[in-house]
Amino acid sequence: MLSGLSAFPLTPVGDGGVDEKAFAKLMERLVSAKVDSIGVLGSTGSYAYLRREERARVAKLAVEHANGIPVMIGIGAISTRDVLELAKDAQKCGASAVLLAPVSYQKLTAGEVYGLYESVCKTLSIPLCVYDNPGTTHFEFSDDLHARIAQLPNVKSIKIPGVPPALADARSRVDRLREKIPSDVSIGVSGDAFAATGLNAGCDAWYSVIGGLLPDTCLAISRAAQAGNADEATQLSARLEPLWALFRQHGSLRVVSAIAEELGLVSAQNLPLPVRALRYEDRVLVRRTVSDLELTT
Amino acid sequence: MLSGLSAFPLTPVGDGGVDEKAFAKLMERLVSAKVDSIGVLGSTGSYAYLRREERARVAKLAVEHANGIPVMIGIGAISTRDVLELAKDAQKCGASAVLLAPVSYQKLTAGEVYGLYESVCKTLSIPLCVYDNPGTTHFEFSDDLHARIAQLPNVKSIKIPGVPPALADARSRVDRLREKIPSDVSIGVSGDAFAATGLNAGCDAWYSVIGGLLPDTCLAISRAAQAGNADEATQLSARLEPLWALFRQHGSLRVVSAIAEELGLVSAQNLPLPVRALRYEDRVLVRRTVSDLELTT
Repeated sequence: MLSGLSAFPLTPVGDGGVDEKAFAKLMERLVSAKVDSIGVLGSTGSYAYLRREERARVAKLAVEHANGIPVMIGIGAISTRDVLELAKDAQKCGASAVLLAPVSYQKLTAGEVYGLYESVCKTLSIPLCVYDNPGTTHFEFSDDLHARIAQLPNVKSIKIPGVPPALADARSRVDRLREKIPSDVSIGVSGDAFAATGLNAGCDAWYSVIGGLLPDTCLAISRAAQAGNADEATQLSARLEPLWALFRQHGSLRVVSAIAEELGLVSAQNLPLPVRALRYEDRVLVRRTVSDLELTT
Repeated sequence: MLSGLSAFPLTPVGDGGVDEKAFAKLMERLVSAKVDSIGVLGSTGSYAYLRREERARVAKLAVEHANGIPVMIGIGAISTRDVLELAKDAQKCGASAVLLAPVSYQKLTAGEVYGLYESVCKTLSIPLCVYDNPGTTHFEFSDDLHARIAQLPNVKSIKIPGVPPALADARSRVDRLREKIPSDVSIGVSGDAFAATGLNAGCDAWYSVIGGLLPDTCLAISRAAQAGNADEATQLSARLEPLWALFRQHGSLRVVSAIAEELGLVSAQNLPLPVRALRYEDRVLVRRTVSDLELTT
C-alpha cells in the first residue's frame, strides 16, 4: 500500500482553528489526480501545532473525502501518552495507516525511540510508517535502529529524509537500508528535491510535500520513474530547481503555503503561529516561480 | 527578583499522571533551604510532556507550597495559541514570573521567535524570563535578537545556556550580552557545570537543575560567588565534577531523576515516556557518585 506517490496536503489553520473548507478543497485535488495515497497531518499538515480534537476532526474529514484512496494519518507528539491516544483516534477515523516521528523535547536515546514504537505497535491494527525526519525531530536514526523497529508488527514503511544527490550513492544508501529490513517494509523518500533520484535509486514511495498541492506535477515524475524512465524523471525534477531553491531557503512548509495562497486555495493566514507566512519580498519570488514554471496542478 | 539561586524541581510523572505528593515534597526541600526563587515546569519539570490541566495544577500546587518564595512557571509549547493559554493559567495560579522557550517543530526564524515573545508580552502582567536553550528548542538566539526581545515590556531576565569555561571568556560573553539589554534585565546561567564560572563572570542568577533537588549544595556555591569568593565557588563546583560528567553523558534530567529516586523522594517511574530512567548499569554509577560526594541536601 505504501508505494508510489503519497501526497501530503497542508492543514490550513486560521484564527478560528482549522479551515475545513480549504482542507476539503485540497483533498479534492488529490482525489481527482488519483495519487496513490494521502498523508494527512504530516509536517506539512502541521500536526505538531494542532490539538487532539482538531487532529481527529481533520483525520475524519480526510477519510470522508478520500474516495477510497488510502489515508495515512500523522500521530506524532512529544509524549507517548498522547501518541497512543492519537493512534486510537486515527484508527477510529478509518485511517489506512499511521505515520509516526519520534518528536522530541529532551534528546532521546535509541532505546527510548525503540520503546515508543514498540508501545504504539502493541495498540495498532493498521500499518505504521516510521517517519525519520531529523530536521524537525532532531533524532538521528541509525540503520540498526531502523532494522530493529522494522521487525515490529505493523511497521510497513520507512520515510527517509532524503538520499545523496548522485544516483550511485543514492542506490547504495537505499540498498544498505533494504538489506536490513523485512521485504514487506517499503522505503519512501522525502525531501522533494531528492525524490526523482530516490525513486530512480529504488525507493518504493515518494512522501511528497509539493505532491499535496501539485499532484499532477509530481505524478508525472513518479510515473516516469516507476516506468523505468529515469532520465525523464530526473529532467522533470530538474525543471523544478527554482522551487527546490525556495524550499531550501524558507523551508517547504512556508513555500507550499505561499503557493497555495497564490493559487487561491487557502486564505492569507493559513499557518499555525508562531510559524508565519513569507514576507512580501519573498512572496514576489514565489509568485514569479509559480508563473515561470506554470505550477498549477 | 530573578537573581540568586533559582531552583528547578522535577515534576514526577507516573502512570497515573503527576505524582503530586512527591512534587510537594520536592517543593518543601526548596522552601526549607530558602532558595531565592523556584522555577517550576522548566525542562527539568517536564513541561513539554504535560497537558494544560496538569500544568495548571502543578503551578497552583507550587505557589501554595512556596511559602512566599517567588515561583516562575514554564509556559512553553509548540503553538503560540497554547503558550497564550498557559500564560493566562500561570498568572491565575499566582505565578511571580513566567519562563518561555521558543519550543519548535518547524525550524523558526528570528522574526517568528520575536513575534512569539511580542504576542505573549501583550497579555502578561508579570515578568517574563527568556529561556534560551538550543539543546531542546533547536533555536539559536543571536545577541541582536536577545536585545530586541529584552526591550519588550515584562521581559526581565534571560536564561542563557552556559558560558565558556575560562573565566575571562565567560566574562566577555556576559558583558557582550549585558551591553545590549536594558539594565533591569538580569542574566542567569544554566548548564549546572558552568554555574560557578557564570556567577563569577557576573551572571545575576543561576537557573539550576540540581538546585531543584540539592538546594543546600547549590546555595553554598551561589552564596560564595555572590560574596565575591570566586575561588571558593569554583572549588565547590569542581568537587561535583563526577556529577557534571554524568550530566554530560545522560542529560541532567535522567540523572536528577535517578538521584531523587536514590534519595527516596520519588518512585522508580517518575519520567514521562518516551523518556526513560537510566539503565541498571548506569544507576550503579549514580549511586556511587551520590555516596562519594555525599549528595543529600
